Amino acid sequence: MPDRIYLDWNATTPLRPEARQAMAAAWDLAGNPSSVHTEGRQARRLVEDARAAIAAAVGARPQDVVFASGGTEANAMALAPGLRRGTGSPVQRLVVSAIEHTSVLSGGRFPAETIAAIKVSGAGLVDPAHLRALLTEGPPALVSVMLANNETGAIQPVGEVADIVHEAGGLLHVDAIQAFGKIPFDINSIRADLITLSGHKIGGPKGVGALVLAEEVQGLEPLLRGGGQELGRRAGTENVAGIAAFGAAIKVAMAELPANAARQQALRERLEKGLNQTPEIIVFSVDAPRLPNTTLFTVRGLRAETAVIGFDLGGIAVSSGSACSSGKVQPSHVLAAMGFSRELAQGAVRLSLGWSTTETDIDLALEAWRKLADALLRGRRNTA
Amino acid sequence: MPDRIYLDWNATTPLRPEARQAMAAAWDLAGNPSSVHTEGRQARRLVEDARAAIAAAVGARPQDVVFASGGTEANAMALAPGLRRGTGSPVQRLVVSAIEHTSVLSGGRFPAETIAAIKVSGAGLVDPAHLRALLTEGPPALVSVMLANNETGAIQPVGEVADIVHEAGGLLHVDAIQAFGKIPFDINSIRADLITLSGHKIGGPKGVGALVLAEEVQGLEPLLRGGGQELGRRAGTENVAGIAAFGAAIKVAMAELPANAARQQALRERLEKGLNQTPEIIVFSVDAPRLPNTTLFTVRGLRAETAVIGFDLGGIAVSSGSACSSGKVQPSHVLAAMGFSRELAQGAVRLSLGWSTTETDIDLALEAWRKLADALLRGRRNTA
Repeated sequence: MPDRIYLDWNATTPLRPEARQAMAAAWDLAGNPSSVHTEGRQARRLVEDARAAIAAAVGARPQDVVFASGGTEANAMALAPGLRRGTGSPVQRLVVSAIEHTSVLSGGRFPAETIAAIKVSGAGLVDPAHLRALLTEGPPALVSVMLANNETGAIQPVGEVADIVHEAGGLLHVDAIQAFGKIPFDINSIRADLITLSGHKIGGPKGVGALVLAEEVQGLEPLLRGGGQELGRRAGTENVAGIAAFGAAIKVAMAELPANAARQQALRERLEKGLNQTPEIIVFSVDAPRLPNTTLFTVRGLRAETAVIGFDLGGIAVSSGSACSSGKVQPSHVLAAMGFSRELAQGAVRLSLGWSTTETDIDLALEAWRKLADALLRGRRNTA
Repeated sequence: MPDRIYLDWNATTPLRPEARQAMAAAWDLAGNPSSVHTEGRQARRLVEDARAAIAAAVGARPQDVVFASGGTEANAMALAPGLRRGTGSPVQRLVVSAIEHTSVLSGGRFPAETIAAIKVSGAGLVDPAHLRALLTEGPPALVSVMLANNETGAIQPVGEVADIVHEAGGLLHVDAIQAFGKIPFDINSIRADLITLSGHKIGGPKGVGALVLAEEVQGLEPLLRGGGQELGRRAGTENVAGIAAFGAAIKVAMAELPANAARQQALRERLEKGLNQTPEIIVFSVDAPRLPNTTLFTVRGLRAETAVIGFDLGGIAVSSGSACSSGKVQPSHVLAAMGFSRELAQGAVRLSLGWSTTETDIDLALEAWRKLADALLRGRRNTA
């Protein structure tokens, strides 16, 4: 396909060349990592090398990295009653921010009646006072707050959240999928007890992710049981090629992070400067710290579906917020939680940038947007 | 690694060239299958093509194929209360054969107190009379009986089992992972309500599998929730490359099945003829119908761990029964259920053949075995 411009990096990234090489190398190994013969040990080595790379990237111990089939499974594994720190009390309820990914909002293995939601501000940041209020009474809670929102890019105050959670005797799970590889952090700097990572947001393949535990966390109940893989925490033959590629992608992503973040921030400024020429444009979460690569915006009267298709016909892949709901364009629960009307929430369009995004990509996207905006404004005048 | 002979195909197979090509092609698609833009639709097409291939291979409808991260997850998804046929009563308890894979023995989402086990014969076949007795009283049951056992290769009487289960108002889940691609069957011929398949047993990659439902089956409770993927039955971004490769591998596996089965059967006969020259050798399940590629055997005094390492040093990869328990050599629960002593069960060695196995491979494996057997017999004489 000639001349396509991909600006949907928060949905999924292209596979990095280093990840391709790692996958292809893994193909040559026939063995099952649980087998004791040479072929099995070769496969095991790939898995353990990747585990070490992931642990190093987030400041954890290799034995605290549990591979999963992606962020959704890792989140489902994380959200379970019984987790505790050391000899502390096990969590018995769940508190999630209202802007979490649907895999977190679904609550994992907590019964629905034990789940509460933290409000967010108009800028899309969790409200620490509300969290504090939710934790004042009741049994120890597992709190799940994402490091950065996938739709707005808003970076959450997880340090402040961690203090509140730990003072209340709870545990903090951080879905770090969107932040990973885009801003520097580690499990200790954000004081999380569990973090979720995904391969396909950092140049690895789709279908692999990880749950990482802080050193003192105990009581993780397996979601998949049977074999003793992953130290008994996740049964099933490992996705060896996917895991190896995840590890390879992480190494590059970490090495390139500072330069990529700076480049993407500059490109995003260029993009938003252009978007701001459209009258009455709303760019969401501009008053919050944001990921360097994400812009979510709308204008009154815009339909996201029309915009996504319009961009696509113009050769540009963009998104209408989260892409994880089977392609249906639904009003964003994130914008609803931020207090925006259903009409505005239905019109939100996300452009997310990546390591191969260029100034030309941005300029062509702006040109496509101007055409869409002009048509919209003409439509408005005609119906006025 | 020069001159290695791989005879551990029941643990995992080498990746077929067709699967490699499909994976590499999938890498070039950056999109998320849930995205509505061109890149997303391209990825979606690969997933749906693979779904159609899998459905065709087992006689099911494409919409009844649910992709998962492997057999373990597919089994965990299948084993849940609430399943029913049409307007029938939902199952409330689980009955599994004593020789199921550990992912089935773990019982999925059934409480431990609602799980019962069906006895097996000395040949490793489930006992229909015992199943009938287990189903005489009590609420509707989900019954899980594998099509062929991974350790012995014994092909279970699932047709008879299906009649018993359905007469009792229950549902039948068939873990068809080991049989798939080795013997012909489809979901209707075995009258199963749900079947589990895995990619890496038929030349696809590790980390992908599927649960397939019969047309009338209702009430499947998702294990992974959040996004609307897989018609709401399994949330999470799809392992696109893995799924595409699974589909590609299935097409070849099905096309080659008759020829491969005949070839492997002949090679297996050659193998067992050779093994039978060892005094007092026991080949398990010889009185049962068996997969054409599997031989499980022992002699008194053999330690499986020693044998596996001995074969490995001789350049040959073999297994000590199931490889899915993190490399630990434990006595086989399958042989224990068949009534063999712990001592014999600890000594069982599995050779499993595949499409690239040659007569020379078999002869070299027999040569390696004779050395091991001679050493063992010498050891016996010395301690006698």
